[in-house]
Amino acid sequence: MAIKLSELAELTGSRLHGEDCLIENVADIDAAKEGDLAFVNHPKYLEKMAATSASAVILKENWLDKCPTAALVADNPRLAFVKATISLNPARRFAPGIAASAVIAEGVAVADSVYIGPNVVIEPDVKLGNDVQIGANSVISSDVVIGDNTVIHPGVMIGYGTEIGSNCIIYSGAVIGSDGFGYEREGDAYLKIPQLGNVKIGSDVEIGANTAIDRGALHDTVIGDGVKLDNLVQVAHNVVIGKHTVMSGHSGIAGSTKVGEYCIIGGGVGISDNLEVCDNAVILGRTLVSHSITKPGAYASSMLTDEVQNWRKNALRFRHLNEMEKRLKALENKLESDQQD
Amino acid sequence: MAIKLSELAELTGSRLHGEDCLIENVADIDAAKEGDLAFVNHPKYLEKMAATSASAVILKENWLDKCPTAALVADNPRLAFVKATISLNPARRFAPGIAASAVIAEGVAVADSVYIGPNVVIEPDVKLGNDVQIGANSVISSDVVIGDNTVIHPGVMIGYGTEIGSNCIIYSGAVIGSDGFGYEREGDAYLKIPQLGNVKIGSDVEIGANTAIDRGALHDTVIGDGVKLDNLVQVAHNVVIGKHTVMSGHSGIAGSTKVGEYCIIGGGVGISDNLEVCDNAVILGRTLVSHSITKPGAYASSMLTDEVQNWRKNALRFRHLNEMEKRLKALENKLESDQQD
Amino acid sequence: MAIKLSELAELTGSRLHGEDCLIENVADIDAAKEGDLAFVNHPKYLEKMAATSASAVILKENWLDKCPTAALVADNPRLAFVKATISLNPARRFAPGIAASAVIAEGVAVADSVYIGPNVVIEPDVKLGNDVQIGANSVISSDVVIGDNTVIHPGVMIGYGTEIGSNCIIYSGAVIGSDGFGYEREGDAYLKIPQLGNVKIGSDVEIGANTAIDRGALHDTVIGDGVKLDNLVQVAHNVVIGKHTVMSGHSGIAGSTKVGEYCIIGGGVGISDNLEVCDNAVILGRTLVSHSITKPGAYASSMLTDEVQNWRKNALRFRHLNEMEKRLKALENKLESDQQD
Repeated sequence: MAIKLSELAELTGSRLHGEDCLIENVADIDAAKEGDLAFVNHPKYLEKMAATSASAVILKENWLDKCPTAALVADNPRLAFVKATISLNPARRFAPGIAASAVIAEGVAVADSVYIGPNVVIEPDVKLGNDVQIGANSVISSDVVIGDNTVIHPGVMIGYGTEIGSNCIIYSGAVIGSDGFGYEREGDAYLKIPQLGNVKIGSDVEIGANTAIDRGALHDTVIGDGVKLDNLVQVAHNVVIGKHTVMSGHSGIAGSTKVGEYCIIGGGVGISDNLEVCDNAVILGRTLVSHSITKPGAYASSMLTDEVQNWRKNALRFRHLNEMEKRLKALENKLESDQQD
Repeated sequence: MAIKLSELAELTGSRLHGEDCLIENVADIDAAKEGDLAFVNHPKYLEKMAATSASAVILKENWLDKCPTAALVADNPRLAFVKATISLNPARRFAPGIAASAVIAEGVAVADSVYIGPNVVIEPDVKLGNDVQIGANSVISSDVVIGDNTVIHPGVMIGYGTEIGSNCIIYSGAVIGSDGFGYEREGDAYLKIPQLGNVKIGSDVEIGANTAIDRGALHDTVIGDGVKLDNLVQVAHNVVIGKHTVMSGHSGIAGSTKVGEYCIIGGGVGISDNLEVCDNAVILGRTLVSHSITKPGAYASSMLTDEVQNWRKNALRFRHLNEMEKRLKALENKLESDQQD
Repeated sequence: MAIKLSELAELTGSRLHGEDCLIENVADIDAAKEGDLAFVNHPKYLEKMAATSASAVILKENWLDKCPTAALVADNPRLAFVKATISLNPARRFAPGIAASAVIAEGVAVADSVYIGPNVVIEPDVKLGNDVQIGANSVISSDVVIGDNTVIHPGVMIGYGTEIGSNCIIYSGAVIGSDGFGYEREGDAYLKIPQLGNVKIGSDVEIGANTAIDRGALHDTVIGDGVKLDNLVQVAHNVVIGKHTVMSGHSGIAGSTKVGEYCIIGGGVGISDNLEVCDNAVILGRTLVSHSITKPGAYASSMLTDEVQNWRKNALRFRHLNEMEKRLKALENKLESDQQD
């Protein structure tokens, strides 16, 4: 798919400088070849720009004089580049239609614009919006609602009663609506607590490969509009995630915790149960969030990599850190009293 | 499904106080409406109880005078509430029967009480108990044994030779019986060590969504009766987990480690290989268990969340913790010798 | 399958000592019975060897006089044992053939030596090598290339354009080629960045159950020959993993990081984005790799398990570690100046 550079200027909200040309795709500034559009968003790449084989470059106005090619001038070259990438690479879609091997319960209405892949199972009372795509071998359990234009990749399992908004993308292996992890000890064993809630997912949400989202116990588990969950994320029962919060791979939220809007949660972060994390919190990778966070800002708890021989000495010493403080205090007191003598 | 309060008293081992009535479901004390049964297990909720719209409340005897509704008196209101919840919400089951699209090997006996969903694959020599349910698109490999009343959710993959007891629940995306992770270096490459063991799972076990349990190398991987594994848990080859141990999401046990009975293992815990963890150990979230645990009690190793600017200073300083101790020791020695001068 | 001990000597590159006999399988030295072959690779097992019921033992030459059975003498008894295990336990394979319920796109060539299980979906323009095995309910998207003798277990999802070499094993629940996790903030929401790269996997690679490997953004995600990934591993977009690197369960690599060859990465390790890890790095379990590693060697960052009451005091004190150093420094300065007075 090729687009004229002048047209891309319009599509990306940028300004054409130099000769118009035909752009075939996007590329990194140093890998670009003829027909490619690249971008520069930091002065350190200006040297590479000078040597680029790209047909055009997106950049800030003040770098124009160093640009050997046609250019698109933008305040945020990276954002304009993403928009050009989207224009040049429309999302892959299956043609509408229902595979012969799909097993669809009687009474489920499927619009002509919908794609349902091979071996998909759709149970009774499911409601599918327009332009929905359901990838091969996925299972949509009873009473699920899926909004317009949502794409379910192959091999996704969606439990009964789950509601999913419009324009969502759910990647392969995601499991939504499994029972929450709740037990009550009775004598020598555990009694399973019925999980009566559902999972409610807003619009423009993305859910990564092999991510698991449990249904609520008495209330619902709620994922707000625009939330992006990476791969292998765990969302426990009754969790609420506010709008446009982003969670990287291997992160997890324990039961009944509420995470605010616009949070950025790094990879491998664990958030304990029954906490609240306020809006706009940034949590660095591998942090254990052990207490509620009430103030926007950046938080961390992980340790830094070290060579094993140093690390071991320090890690062993850590077990006596509190004693060290007491020894330090004792010295301070002693010097204080010596002074006063 | 509605049940008389007097009947719920019997079903939950509690005592009815006040007028009998019809209970339709359970709810939180502050969300409950007419027809709902709520519970209180801490004095801090007594105020909410005074204002509840529930039709009845489960509580301790000494709070009866503050209860505006009918009541069920119980020693453990939470346990009674769970039992009432179970009575009012029987587990969802598919009607027995075999879906037309299921692929079942010749010679596999399927009792009339069994449900086998669409696109399920059952390989030769599988043995299924009574009342077993196998969800859509699951694959049961050869020589698997599944006990009475066990429920396999959609999209579960069970490897050959796996044995699963009665009354288990396996959630979507779980993989049981994949090969253990074992290699031997030969020259410049790794040789795969054949994994000859199986996975043996007791009764009343629950296995969460996208959890993985590997088969053993020479022996079996063993999961005891009543064990509950949350989502995205990793159980490596030859691991043995004792009865009624509970593991939260993202926790993992490395090869050949034995975990005792009635342990409670938090989210994101990692237990190293070839260790033993005794019965009744409680391991807090995100702990790395680096050594065997021989004494019941609670264990931890994670760090606490801090604001990034504080955290960074401390994390950098940690690399010199052992030196700090030596400096402290030097000061102590010096003051000691000054004293003696 | 039984093999003569003399033949196993040849197959494992070891030397027969004592009477030839028929070996049926392998076993641990203390669990072995007649017909079994065991091994000893450390003097601490010599006592068990003296009492073994095995028919033969693999050992080092200098332990021969303590061996009560026939023996195979090897420089590396463990390696010889693994080779014997492989000879006695050929990998399980399905007979070639295509299941009636498989859905294979027109024009896809399937060699007679290939096995395709029930409900497998193969989209257009897929290329399958000889002796490939594709387990039940797996989905192979368009333009995927799979090399000779590669085995895909049931329930694997492979995204369009993925290339997989020869002799690979992909375990159930693995998802390869899901979109990378890339967004650009635009006003109050996030714009999805199209992920235009693919996943390229070398030969002799193993990919564990429920592991996720994302496609690249502009370039490809690359997994080198001989790499072994355990279960529930996360590989983000544009990651490059060098040949023969091994990663244990729950480990993850963030976007665009390059990991070298022959690295050994423990369980639960997280490697941050845009880093480089050199060849031959050994990273201990649960380490957060926060900076590039440029020197071969062993690295760690996790803390050691402690009883909760000690741990809590030390963890709280850690928040003041930097202040402690300043207090220590103040004492040192004070004593220094006292000295000079």
